[in-house]
Amino acid sequence: MKIYEQKVAPNARRVRMFLAEKALLDEVKFVEQDLQAGDNITPDFRQKNPLGKIPVLELDDGTYLSESMAICRYFEVLNPEPNLMGVTALEQAMIEMWQRRCEIYFMNQVGMGFQHTSGFFADRMTPVKEWGEECVKNAGKFMGLLNKHLAESEYVAGERFTVADITAFVTIDFARVIRMRIPEEMTNLKAWYERINSRDSAKV
Amino acid sequence: MKIYEQKVAPNARRVRMFLAEKALLDEVKFVEQDLQAGDNITPDFRQKNPLGKIPVLELDDGTYLSESMAICRYFEVLNPEPNLMGVTALEQAMIEMWQRRCEIYFMNQVGMGFQHTSGFFADRMTPVKEWGEECVKNAGKFMGLLNKHLAESEYVAGERFTVADITAFVTIDFARVIRMRIPEEMTNLKAWYERINSRDSAKV
Repeated sequence: MKIYEQKVAPNARRVRMFLAEKALLDEVKFVEQDLQAGDNITPDFRQKNPLGKIPVLELDDGTYLSESMAICRYFEVLNPEPNLMGVTALEQAMIEMWQRRCEIYFMNQVGMGFQHTSGFFADRMTPVKEWGEECVKNAGKFMGLLNKHLAESEYVAGERFTVADITAFVTIDFARVIRMRIPEEMTNLKAWYERINSRDSAKV
Repeated sequence: MKIYEQKVAPNARRVRMFLAEKALLDEVKFVEQDLQAGDNITPDFRQKNPLGKIPVLELDDGTYLSESMAICRYFEVLNPEPNLMGVTALEQAMIEMWQRRCEIYFMNQVGMGFQHTSGFFADRMTPVKEWGEECVKNAGKFMGLLNKHLAESEYVAGERFTVADITAFVTIDFARVIRMRIPEEMTNLKAWYERINSRDSAKV
């Protein structure tokens, strides 16, 4: 199997961290793409993913799979232990709820905040600075919500580490691109961050 | 069980359509919320979902579950037939990939296009018209991608109806709010739309 990715990209890191938790990193060959050079928007790459996004998983039979959470689900179903996406119906749903909250209201806000305020991909999208500034504010608000939530929950989606922690953790590191750090007063969020950061999977 | 929703909202319709396909609509009591009046952003509602979004599922024990796809997954795991989210690892992943593509690059674009060009929720967000116009363009582009894809696939995620069709179908109807219809020349997309529209679940 191969994964086309850019090592520094947050979605790529989510998938690597997921694979590391499942001790599956060695099963995959990683193929580095240069996003700024446009490797991911060539006609050849769009055969792999018409949306031109990384990461893309290539199975040994040539099947391509994209969207980070779809890739994670593929590995989760084939390798259920350690479980990262829930077992019972309610647990699966609660983890998906928190994963989506972290993705939609945090990760995507940081991503758009970065792209729209920096013009990083101005060759392929129209940056709208005012929108980027809104996104940065939204991301800051979500940090506050997460800090409050973590007062009563050891991990993002309950009492154990799950894929929801991966999304939140990767986003906090990624938020450096918009110069956003966890504020000192958000002590629950800081303690949780250190808990996740001490895992081996945080290094990949 | 109860679902707090606004009947006309696209995310609410996704969940109802999913429940209709599983013949579970009668198991749930629907509680209508007036989003324009702000029913969903009161302190009371934020106890149900701190993000203030609908739909929210309330289980009989008082547990709240939000995020449409998390709610759908809850019902899918408890009621696996008819299957709407995949069986094998690869099928689950492919359906999730297409569901996410339809959600991120289509549904969310239509939603932001509407909110940012109309100022519909200007009391609780900052509409950025230029960004809304970009989103409308993005939604139109995705229609083209979907039309091309449906030349070789009877349904969005393969040869049978799945949750990915629900997201795409609901979005096309929702796109009327930005006066977007399927262009006449997109014959694959039109034929697929009629196929989905003839299902009983399309009426709920």
